[in-house]
Amino acid sequence: MNLSDPLGGAAVARCRGLLEPALHEAVAVLHPWGARVAAFALGWSDTDGGPRGGDGGKSVRPAIAMLSAEAVGASAESALPGAVAVELVHAFSLAHDDIMDRDELRRHRPSLWKAYGVGPALLAGDALLALAVSQLAGRPEAMPYLSAALIELVQGQSADMAFENRPWHGPDAVTIEEYAEMAAGKTGGLLGAAAAAGVALGGAPELADRMWTMGRDLGVAFQIADDMLGIWGDPAVTGKPVFSDLRRDKKTIPVLAALAAGGAAARELSAVLASGATDEESVRQAAHLVEEAGGRTRAKELADRYVASALGVIDECLPEAADLRALCDSLVNRVN
Amino acid sequence: MNLSDPLGGAAVARCRGLLEPALHEAVAVLHPWGARVAAFALGWSDTDGGPRGGDGGKSVRPAIAMLSAEAVGASAESALPGAVAVELVHAFSLAHDDIMDRDELRRHRPSLWKAYGVGPALLAGDALLALAVSQLAGRPEAMPYLSAALIELVQGQSADMAFENRPWHGPDAVTIEEYAEMAAGKTGGLLGAAAAAGVALGGAPELADRMWTMGRDLGVAFQIADDMLGIWGDPAVTGKPVFSDLRRDKKTIPVLAALAAGGAAARELSAVLASGATDEESVRQAAHLVEEAGGRTRAKELADRYVASALGVIDECLPEAADLRALCDSLVNRVN
Repeated sequence: MNLSDPLGGAAVARCRGLLEPALHEAVAVLHPWGARVAAFALGWSDTDGGPRGGDGGKSVRPAIAMLSAEAVGASAESALPGAVAVELVHAFSLAHDDIMDRDELRRHRPSLWKAYGVGPALLAGDALLALAVSQLAGRPEAMPYLSAALIELVQGQSADMAFENRPWHGPDAVTIEEYAEMAAGKTGGLLGAAAAAGVALGGAPELADRMWTMGRDLGVAFQIADDMLGIWGDPAVTGKPVFSDLRRDKKTIPVLAALAAGGAAARELSAVLASGATDEESVRQAAHLVEEAGGRTRAKELADRYVASALGVIDECLPEAADLRALCDSLVNRVN
Repeated sequence: MNLSDPLGGAAVARCRGLLEPALHEAVAVLHPWGARVAAFALGWSDTDGGPRGGDGGKSVRPAIAMLSAEAVGASAESALPGAVAVELVHAFSLAHDDIMDRDELRRHRPSLWKAYGVGPALLAGDALLALAVSQLAGRPEAMPYLSAALIELVQGQSADMAFENRPWHGPDAVTIEEYAEMAAGKTGGLLGAAAAAGVALGGAPELADRMWTMGRDLGVAFQIADDMLGIWGDPAVTGKPVFSDLRRDKKTIPVLAALAAGGAAARELSAVLASGATDEESVRQAAHLVEEAGGRTRAKELADRYVASALGVIDECLPEAADLRALCDSLVNRVN
């Protein structure tokens, strides 16, 4: 998942201002060595430990937690333990996913394992996760949602890895429904935990289950948007090589939808995928065929449907939550 | 840490009988692929997924949790969520530590990453941890101890890895005190969480802080015993190559104590260590010199002191806890 595109506005910036000191405080308890690797993972420093201006991610998840608390009439600060927890889990998952996926780049920099080695990156990920759990260990109104998100994360990642060994065609091909379920877990669980922890810590635990569902739907939309960025996004913005997902034969919604559509372009796309070619010319042609077969349009429609479902829950449960609504809406509309 | 030596007796066997079905139930929620890797990690199956009789570890930590609950007058079952959680965290830590330490053998079998690859072993470890957290997510009387143990684990592992880059001599050499602090974290935290969660879930949360301290002391003794097994243990019992820690230049208590003792044997040991030789003859000589310099005796004394401290807490807080006391005592007395 990639969050380097501009998001948010004033409300998100305000949340980020509250988040940063709390996040620094959480990481400060680590062994100096772990703290240095964690600081790199969170975008605060370069590999030499020196400070670094800039992009530590857009803190979408913490903002969802804090804006959810505000939406039930509490302060943003009341959701801070949840906000810190979800940001730390996000950083943990990036650190470990990059090892599993052998991704060498993250946010325009070397990924954590590429910068420090597999062992240190693995341990730093574990440390970030341990710190996340400690934020909510004594808060039984919020902890179960964080816990559920952790299970969803590993289930989603397991499904995603299992997809890689499945064919593009035939009875064992990955269906769009299976993909949505995977994305709801891998991406949606943590968004759901952010929103659920936000309302629960804000004093409205009775809304937490609905917000959990909201986040899972939002996650599917978010993941589809991310898949689209992975094919058609500007590498200067995404920080990833162009067409990288196509090159890796990754099962993504636009490709699955294009193949499911049938027709001449879909058949031609099948042939390109079957050839296994990963040269510039072939992947560019594959991207073109995905679009021609309707994969891009279909993916966008699907993302819109999921985001509408998520926004429907917000409108029903938290009708005054303009900032939260705008943030969630922006997550899927970062690509068109 | 190695637990393949015989431990326990009837009380531990009874706890294991309660643990096994609960552990299977916990793991059953995983993605089929994750469940298969987890089953291997827990010693239930071979790499082909087929069943396997035997040694899934001795379940010392779950037994501590359950016997602690019994010691405060509750049923062993009342501590089951804690027992399952600590066993899952233990399996998680073995899976990840073996990746970090590049250990290829575990309990006489290939280690998890050796059997399935680094990515799957990493993910299975994360899954085991997520399941552990879920056991206690709604139990604020016990969850903070599990959370503290997770932080101690990563801190201890960080310290242990940092020790590897430090010299045997001079102002930067690892001290015995630093080693004890590392062991208290890496090994003691989870033993402390087991005991603390046991009494807390058993209805005596007021004893949990003392039991946490007890477990940390016990962990230092346990780790020293493990270090001694790593040098003088029978490979047929430990499942590790003979002298493996010496071969890897690992900072262990017997070696640190031997060097700290000074004298001719210590000087000769220094020279062997400085040579960097890892052939059979050199490591055998090093082991002999550690013993001659008094490292073995000193390590045993230190372990005895820590275990006495732990047993003192049990005698004071839980004077009737004969089974728990016997189990804790046996942990350090597995080597002589």
